[in-house]
Amino acid sequence: MSDYDVLCIGNAIVDIIARCDDDFLIANAITKGSMNLIDADRAELLYSRMGPAIEASGGSAGNTAAGVASFGGRSAFFGKVSDDHLGTIYTHDIRAQGVAFDTRPLAGEPPTARSMIFVTPDGERSMNTYLGSCVELGAEDVEASKAESARVTYFEGYLWDPPRAKDAIRLTAGIAHGAGREVAMTLSDPFCVDRYRDEFLDLMRTRTVDIVFANEHELKSLYQTESLELAVDSIRQDCLFAAVTRSEKGSICVSRDETIEVEAVPVEEVVDTTGAGDLYASGFLYGYTNGLDMTHCARLGSFAAALVIQQIGPRPAQNLAQAASQAGYL
Amino acid sequence: MSDYDVLCIGNAIVDIIARCDDDFLIANAITKGSMNLIDADRAELLYSRMGPAIEASGGSAGNTAAGVASFGGRSAFFGKVSDDHLGTIYTHDIRAQGVAFDTRPLAGEPPTARSMIFVTPDGERSMNTYLGSCVELGAEDVEASKAESARVTYFEGYLWDPPRAKDAIRLTAGIAHGAGREVAMTLSDPFCVDRYRDEFLDLMRTRTVDIVFANEHELKSLYQTESLELAVDSIRQDCLFAAVTRSEKGSICVSRDETIEVEAVPVEEVVDTTGAGDLYASGFLYGYTNGLDMTHCARLGSFAAALVIQQIGPRPAQNLAQAASQAGYL
Repeated sequence: MSDYDVLCIGNAIVDIIARCDDDFLIANAITKGSMNLIDADRAELLYSRMGPAIEASGGSAGNTAAGVASFGGRSAFFGKVSDDHLGTIYTHDIRAQGVAFDTRPLAGEPPTARSMIFVTPDGERSMNTYLGSCVELGAEDVEASKAESARVTYFEGYLWDPPRAKDAIRLTAGIAHGAGREVAMTLSDPFCVDRYRDEFLDLMRTRTVDIVFANEHELKSLYQTESLELAVDSIRQDCLFAAVTRSEKGSICVSRDETIEVEAVPVEEVVDTTGAGDLYASGFLYGYTNGLDMTHCARLGSFAAALVIQQIGPRPAQNLAQAASQAGYL
Repeated sequence: MSDYDVLCIGNAIVDIIARCDDDFLIANAITKGSMNLIDADRAELLYSRMGPAIEASGGSAGNTAAGVASFGGRSAFFGKVSDDHLGTIYTHDIRAQGVAFDTRPLAGEPPTARSMIFVTPDGERSMNTYLGSCVELGAEDVEASKAESARVTYFEGYLWDPPRAKDAIRLTAGIAHGAGREVAMTLSDPFCVDRYRDEFLDLMRTRTVDIVFANEHELKSLYQTESLELAVDSIRQDCLFAAVTRSEKGSICVSRDETIEVEAVPVEEVVDTTGAGDLYASGFLYGYTNGLDMTHCARLGSFAAALVIQQIGPRPAQNLAQAASQAGYL
């Protein structure tokens, strides 16, 4: 019996969310649909140009941890906040969701990370992330007992942006594998893949990572091809299995000798795509660590993703276990 | 030509919003549907028991100021934040909405006010407000030029809770009336009326206040009667006119020699009633200060209220001018 279903590791970020039109993105040189890294000065400038906003705890792997807990799974999180007001909010929200979160907050500067997320009328989100205290996450933050006792350790590719988080990942992966557990990652963003392609492939080919989550664009970026078919055949060789999301086209589960296509869950109106991939991973991993088959895992992932994109913010307001049960997915 | 349509004065509060069930309210002795004043210790206790939340700028009169601006009106706001992170968020959001807000922030303690708002499955909100730096609003914060140049000065009855805000109100009302302007207030909450009934009636009978906004419960509380008819006949004598909201039953505009009933705008699903009265006032006052007749004013108010209760948070995400125009209300 393990203590946790999923241990998630990622940048601990509070989202600041506002609507804008496409012209605003162009005028401010924000790459649409992507995660743009910014420094403190640009954060101040963009905030001064941003419309009225709401704040909500976010961060890719943090959203996944919250999703797993909302499904009724046992999840834990490693991530670095500062001992400031946004850090208090972040810590409150993830613990209130039932996630075990004990990473020691940073005393003093830099402040807790925030991402200014601009949502365009089509529902697409464009993120502008100031990493703040996330740059201080390191090997000293690894809690060995959690790494040993989680069925799956899941981390975000975004962790290659801060300088020392990759040390924490390699250490955690070693502990997890030593305890007979599995390690998963998300490729996070096509531009993130561009920055760290060789390292990500190395993680997979050295079996530091067993399971890969990616959307179609990230997967194509990883193998530098325009052909989804080629990319799928490539990742088949590089990991135990991969779950590839394709927005309204559903998702594909790829293992050495099998390819399973699963339909998307229909959506009335796309309000805000923030958290779609993170919640897909939460549903998939909840199912996987609780013994469901691949098709069922992918359906749970699609269900959680469909819920989160029909509301503003990166974490569904509903209880996912209850909602999935009512909708016949659990 | 005046510089502003509406000057709003109120407690500057950041809302922290989460869902809960009715049992939670009972277990924590929270009066449902009302504004519960709390101190710093109880704020910490309730936050520790609160589920995952989102943060959004709020405060009754602040929501009204934001609503007037969203309708395309010229609005200003007086309210006291502290120079901390929540104060930065509050200031950003109200200015980003186009509201003139220049009240000097408090340096140091107490921190910016926050209200923990619990939303039950029926959409009703129960507020728990820690007033923080709002207790420091006083006559020294009155900007005479704004008070002189706003067609209507509007303030919340909640301002009788902090110790010196009433001085600011009396000073502002004097300046406004001296410049030939009108003064409006909202009764805010039935329990607030209970606390300050005599003072509120005195404000009206001394013509410090010309226009009154109230919901049915507040109006009945003011005149200590269970009869709406009696209460309406009483307020008719006590002010220039009153706008009385009745949730799904619409609203009533009451002047010396006229009573106009206006239907509510239909709503698909009540998600969160936070801000309903504030947004009604924004639509009404936008219309009133732009020369529309009473019926039209009430319709705009109901339209804005209907929008805000179909989403989470106290200020509509939509541009109200655009939405009202598309729906045929403007």
